[in-house]
Amino acid sequence: MRMRKLKWAKDYLDASPLVVKNMEEMKGKWRETVHRDCLHVEIGTGKGDYWIQMSKIDEESGWIGIEKNESVAGLAVRKATESEPGENMKFIYGDADAIDTWFEEKEIDVIHLNFSDPWPKKRASKRRLSHKNFLEKYKFILKDDGEIRMKTDNSSLFEFSLLQFEEAGWKLVDVSVDFRRVTHDEDAISEYERKFMEKGQPIYRAVWKK
Amino acid sequence: MRMRKLKWAKDYLDASPLVVKNMEEMKGKWRETVHRDCLHVEIGTGKGDYWIQMSKIDEESGWIGIEKNESVAGLAVRKATESEPGENMKFIYGDADAIDTWFEEKEIDVIHLNFSDPWPKKRASKRRLSHKNFLEKYKFILKDDGEIRMKTDNSSLFEFSLLQFEEAGWKLVDVSVDFRRVTHDEDAISEYERKFMEKGQPIYRAVWKK
Repeated sequence: MRMRKLKWAKDYLDASPLVVKNMEEMKGKWRETVHRDCLHVEIGTGKGDYWIQMSKIDEESGWIGIEKNESVAGLAVRKATESEPGENMKFIYGDADAIDTWFEEKEIDVIHLNFSDPWPKKRASKRRLSHKNFLEKYKFILKDDGEIRMKTDNSSLFEFSLLQFEEAGWKLVDVSVDFRRVTHDEDAISEYERKFMEKGQPIYRAVWKK
Repeated sequence: MRMRKLKWAKDYLDASPLVVKNMEEMKGKWRETVHRDCLHVEIGTGKGDYWIQMSKIDEESGWIGIEKNESVAGLAVRKATESEPGENMKFIYGDADAIDTWFEEKEIDVIHLNFSDPWPKKRASKRRLSHKNFLEKYKFILKDDGEIRMKTDNSSLFEFSLLQFEEAGWKLVDVSVDFRRVTHDEDAISEYERKFMEKGQPIYRAVWKK
């Protein structure tokens, strides 16, 4: 999401106890850090709606949010702070390009990609979070029976993703071309997602295993 | 498609030179029969729009239509007869359950499934043309680099199909959740498909290889 730079964000992120700073040193220690056995990671939290809501809907799991845009990350962490955050939440302000240096091999149970930037121009396809280069990193940090869950409103990104995962040998275990056709109380709806639903646009979703 | 029974259909199909009667004896001889090296089969032609148009758009290939509903088959063959059919067309009035007894192993280049009956009730899932039992038969009659191309307006059938093909080990090579978002002059549009397009409903499409 593009937005003007928020001057307070950097200091806020630096000062927040929700934000983990020394990611490389946390390798293999994330379960302790969030006091949970099951680890969910959302890459690209945006303003944090999904990450925050899910940490409450699924309190049994640890929820780690990642966002690389400083201002957006600031908004997400501020919103989390104001929501009485549980001990099962942590946040990383950083670029998921380095995700395989933050987590140990097979440390993660579930990776969430929600409404990721579609990077529509073909020459920018490497920036898409479902590009095969990212999939390699996800494969490394995911448990053997771990999974990646993706939602998007963008049909081109969805199609691209289905083919990238296929080529990389992942197994499609669930798919929907109209996820909100039925109710899914187990899955939080961000403000961003709700806008598409209100316009009657379909939400695409897929789940893959290694 | 449900429709009232047309009394003339049986005799018409029996008398038409487009309709092949002795399918089992044609095994391995379909190329000669349609005078072409590349064999396309459409399972479930409905009223025949796609089969007829494609035999003209892609004259270099042979086009074999299959339909099991007698009245619908009668309409398809009558329409074909009135369209100055090329020597590259043949028709089978029969149930695709037996498809692996009509064609030789690896005889077919492309199988088309267009707007197949979704059989929405779970207990009828075996009747869906993308059920794994059918996929076994398709695998047998398809060339090693042959492919199956599916189009549908039905989101549930599309999702079911993606998962059935995945489980059966097929490779997804192309996918679209809004196929008519861009023009595809190489692919005919049946009356049936056009109705959905006019209502602004998305056409789902996928292509798989063995």
